Amino acid sequence: MKGTLVYKILKDHLIEGDLEIGKEIAIKLNQTLTQDSTGTMVYLQLEAMGIDKIKTDLSVAYIDHNTIQAGFENADDHEFIRTAARKYGLVYSKPGGGICHQVQLERFAKPGITLIGSDSHTPTAGGLGALAIGAGGLDVAVGMANGYYYITVPKVYNVKLTGKLSDKCNGKDVILTVLQKLSVKGGVGYIMEYTGPGVKSLSVTDRATICNMGAELGATTSIFPSDENTLDFLTKQNRPEDYIELSPDEEAEYENTLEINLDDIVPMAAKPHSPDNVIKVDDEKIKVDQVAIGSCTNSSYADMMKVAKILDGNKVDPSVSLVIAPGSSNILRLLSENGALKIFIEAGARILESACGPCIGMGQAPKSKGVSLRTFNRNFKGRSGTMDAEVYLVSPETAAASAITGYLTNPNTLDLDLTIEEPGNYGKSDNYFIFPNEEDLGKDVVMGPNIKPFPKAVPLSDTINKKVILKTGDNITTDDICPSNAKLLPFRSNIPYLSQFSFKTIVDDFYDRAVNNDGGIIVGGDNYGQGSSREHAALVPLFLGVKAVIAKSFARIHRSNLINSGILPLVFVNKDDYEKIDEYDELELNNTIEAVTNGKVINLINKTKNIEIPVIFEGSPREIEVVLNGGFLNYAKNNKLEV
Amino acid sequence: MKGTLVYKILKDHLIEGDLEIGKEIAIKLNQTLTQDSTGTMVYLQLEAMGIDKIKTDLSVAYIDHNTIQAGFENADDHEFIRTAARKYGLVYSKPGGGICHQVQLERFAKPGITLIGSDSHTPTAGGLGALAIGAGGLDVAVGMANGYYYITVPKVYNVKLTGKLSDKCNGKDVILTVLQKLSVKGGVGYIMEYTGPGVKSLSVTDRATICNMGAELGATTSIFPSDENTLDFLTKQNRPEDYIELSPDEEAEYENTLEINLDDIVPMAAKPHSPDNVIKVDDEKIKVDQVAIGSCTNSSYADMMKVAKILDGNKVDPSVSLVIAPGSSNILRLLSENGALKIFIEAGARILESACGPCIGMGQAPKSKGVSLRTFNRNFKGRSGTMDAEVYLVSPETAAASAITGYLTNPNTLDLDLTIEEPGNYGKSDNYFIFPNEEDLGKDVVMGPNIKPFPKAVPLSDTINKKVILKTGDNITTDDICPSNAKLLPFRSNIPYLSQFSFKTIVDDFYDRAVNNDGGIIVGGDNYGQGSSREHAALVPLFLGVKAVIAKSFARIHRSNLINSGILPLVFVNKDDYEKIDEYDELELNNTIEAVTNGKVINLINKTKNIEIPVIFEGSPREIEVVLNGGFLNYAKNNKLEV
Repeated sequence: MKGTLVYKILKDHLIEGDLEIGKEIAIKLNQTLTQDSTGTMVYLQLEAMGIDKIKTDLSVAYIDHNTIQAGFENADDHEFIRTAARKYGLVYSKPGGGICHQVQLERFAKPGITLIGSDSHTPTAGGLGALAIGAGGLDVAVGMANGYYYITVPKVYNVKLTGKLSDKCNGKDVILTVLQKLSVKGGVGYIMEYTGPGVKSLSVTDRATICNMGAELGATTSIFPSDENTLDFLTKQNRPEDYIELSPDEEAEYENTLEINLDDIVPMAAKPHSPDNVIKVDDEKIKVDQVAIGSCTNSSYADMMKVAKILDGNKVDPSVSLVIAPGSSNILRLLSENGALKIFIEAGARILESACGPCIGMGQAPKSKGVSLRTFNRNFKGRSGTMDAEVYLVSPETAAASAITGYLTNPNTLDLDLTIEEPGNYGKSDNYFIFPNEEDLGKDVVMGPNIKPFPKAVPLSDTINKKVILKTGDNITTDDICPSNAKLLPFRSNIPYLSQFSFKTIVDDFYDRAVNNDGGIIVGGDNYGQGSSREHAALVPLFLGVKAVIAKSFARIHRSNLINSGILPLVFVNKDDYEKIDEYDELELNNTIEAVTNGKVINLINKTKNIEIPVIFEGSPREIEVVLNGGFLNYAKNNKLEV
Repeated sequence: MKGTLVYKILKDHLIEGDLEIGKEIAIKLNQTLTQDSTGTMVYLQLEAMGIDKIKTDLSVAYIDHNTIQAGFENADDHEFIRTAARKYGLVYSKPGGGICHQVQLERFAKPGITLIGSDSHTPTAGGLGALAIGAGGLDVAVGMANGYYYITVPKVYNVKLTGKLSDKCNGKDVILTVLQKLSVKGGVGYIMEYTGPGVKSLSVTDRATICNMGAELGATTSIFPSDENTLDFLTKQNRPEDYIELSPDEEAEYENTLEINLDDIVPMAAKPHSPDNVIKVDDEKIKVDQVAIGSCTNSSYADMMKVAKILDGNKVDPSVSLVIAPGSSNILRLLSENGALKIFIEAGARILESACGPCIGMGQAPKSKGVSLRTFNRNFKGRSGTMDAEVYLVSPETAAASAITGYLTNPNTLDLDLTIEEPGNYGKSDNYFIFPNEEDLGKDVVMGPNIKPFPKAVPLSDTINKKVILKTGDNITTDDICPSNAKLLPFRSNIPYLSQFSFKTIVDDFYDRAVNNDGGIIVGGDNYGQGSSREHAALVPLFLGVKAVIAKSFARIHRSNLINSGILPLVFVNKDDYEKIDEYDELELNNTIEAVTNGKVINLINKTKNIEIPVIFEGSPREIEVVLNGGFLNYAKNNKLEV
């Protein structure tokens, strides 16, 4: 990775550790962003850290996900986030202002900075040359509090671009081509670094589209160098001072390379139900029922203007529902001023608020078995809200052409000039932002009745004396531990409420057992905690006073979440000892601090059966510290690096 | 009522009956409209009538209610309605085109016509001088099929306007004043007819706002005369040919009169939780959390432009969420062209799709205990989606002024000139309409998996031999018979599904009882079928094969719905005989046709107990015919008047 753009930025931000592939390092964090769906938990965690003010250069709290507001919960979440931003010194971006990644690109991201966000498409800012990474909520909270971020140094994948992209094609067609070649696992363990003479034919927003969907490659992030296009974009966004020139060394060392000739790029589509199930648009003629244009992937000014050029003077096919959501209020304003919005309306398009909307299943579910073309980034089964819908991912150009014809259509067939003239200046609409000010720092946050404080963890006790309140079989999922369904989703910021549903698939009274025994210990089988990565499956047991889980083996991510929550994940030294514990047995663990610190066996005493059972916690040096401190938040409070 | 505008229109449309107050007449129907929330049932009913083509001059099927589309059900409903419109020759208005009443006003309604709609705010078109009435779904279906409508001749209430409305006030302030004076029951049994020299100071859209909220008076409808303002509006809407001059006679006879001096009108607000709980805006200074502008009540071009004048150069208060939804795509286009939309965006407003949206609780629920100012027509508790929210109804001018200050604010205090110049021509956006064409007539309708045919009723059998499958106590509600809650609302077009939940509050197995006994008879106490007027509480028993309900007494509307569904509502001649029947008794009714026809007692035989019990059906001549025919649809098929 030496000499790569990634290496340069990491080196420039290194606070702790060795900059070697596979090693964990701490890097200085310039910016963070959150959206509202993950944001409530982030700010609850920030609250739990008890800080006065954030340590990043800039952190922005966006409202773009839960904008429908079917009940009070969403509006309460917005108010909570607004007041948390006020208390800790963040920029708050009101609903209607736009989609976090698009707005961050327009207003805040810069070449060479580090940015993490509690959203997997945070890499969008890589289009400007930022090192922008999607991260867990806890990482973002700690990042804001301490100003740095722990990352395992990834490999760097060079995507070398030659040739020139046609005006009928979009960054979307480039990344769909990359996905076709590398698959959704092709980027795992890598950062994708785009280089080569083809880069200059790509606008910043085309680059952003490519970086955005790098998430679908499984890559840690994606990044472009900065150049005259970057400077032009920043100048037109009224912040040329944010520009720095950034490029890899000529002799940069990449761990892998893919060459793409942009001359060969044609309109592409990802068929149901995976972003890498890619074909040429020309290869399939299907009837289309719905077309949706927008999302953090494809809602830029240029994307919208190409759509306007195609729709101009045309009418949406009667059998098609076309919805358009510009990526930011500023883009909507520009479209309104230059007549593009009029074209959309005269074509019969539905104009939605500048927000994530249908991309995250917030409305616009297609009809039963409907074929929906979307300029979004994911087409997983059911994500649209309609289980039997067929969702295709396409460029805005392909989407617009298809909306007119009613069939999946190659925009080349329309014989139009789709060259876009960007405006001389993008202007700006600051009125959706509430900027932080010194006077408001420390003011109370407002928590509606559905928002409950983050459960507090305490440092590891040297002696644990608790009853076994549950003994499970193998392969317990995080859905068993903390169910996630439409009924419970609005309660993601209410751990006490969620805790009432914990383990309901296994026993009906787990909540009562925990309450009546003042917490307790859980005994599990193999692969305990498999499935979804949700932090809530650790936070609910934490809230209920669970001190340890003893299992035959753990699923990787849930084990990390238990550690981050300060719950001790112990494994049986002899798997057969699982049989020697029954529900409601009284267990005693002694000298845990010394044992955990040194990775030594603990001889657990089953007081009910009067026997000893060897169990052990084995973790990395940092995991050991986290467990001893009682979770990542406490650890981060007690172990601050110099920034 | 002689000489009134109402009288003239009714007389002009009379097909059958005597034009006397309290008498039922049939009138020729020029237009109908439906929205999608009630529309699916209307078109299922139309399907059940087996017609080839509608008989009205024009019928429009709008999609404006269920536009969020959280699941496939909404989109399937849209597709069903689109294809029903195609089959029977209606205009279909796609989602995004606008709110039914605003679009009907702009494009289709005319002075002097009759219009019914399956929405209680259909009277909006009274602003143009149309006789426009909200009606039940069955009435609208039959109206389309047969071209006429049965109405009981109402009294006429004269609202005599003098003076001139200030540019800081709105039709909304006028109707709020009327509501303050007359209350939500003040219009029951009346049509409100506006007259007097003050009329000419009111634009067509101010008049429409007043007629719209006449529904909140409980009035059958409201109407204005037509004049040069009407002609001007129609001319600018590119249809001057639709104008006719219409006014009451000088010596018109009104059953009641209210005088309003427009000079005295000041900004008003309806406080929680009733539209008649009206105060002057100046009388209360409250902190505001949300402001919502739009809905069929206040989303006209002039309304929006006044909002733009107030927001121009200002910023929405940071603690306020301002949402704006123009009433039609055409208005949105005009606002985009003339720069008003830019003003909204620069102020930080959220721009929503042209649809009903938050007015019907489709999103934008305020935060907990939030104060929301809305330009809508109803502020019932919980309607906003937040049970403890405080909703105030205000004019757009008051709403916009308050959005800036953060407090309920009289727009007069801003010292602005709010005179609006209407555009020379409103233009039009036809691309949201799918107009009917001869070739498509008769094409199949598309019914998604959640849409089930309307249950078929059969003519009354002369002998009914059925078991008592349920015996209830007094005061059974339509909620008991067919529950309505968030979980069941998406299934309003799926009677078979709803039937599984019938009487669940009383017994757990009503559905099974009906299925296992091939239908049956229900025995009820006093006031059977009280509560909500929903037709579904009769359609579900019809679907399950219930042939008769025998009760001590019936609630009025449910009794009508049973008759309309072809279920015989019988009352005990001696209330004490209620005790002589038990669940699962086998009952026999003989010679029902002759008894029903002549209002004679039927001697019901309880075969299980071997006793006779006298019961009776007493109805109006038309009700008798409807029961004999097996419901209103069958009646309407078999009894067609010359149109």
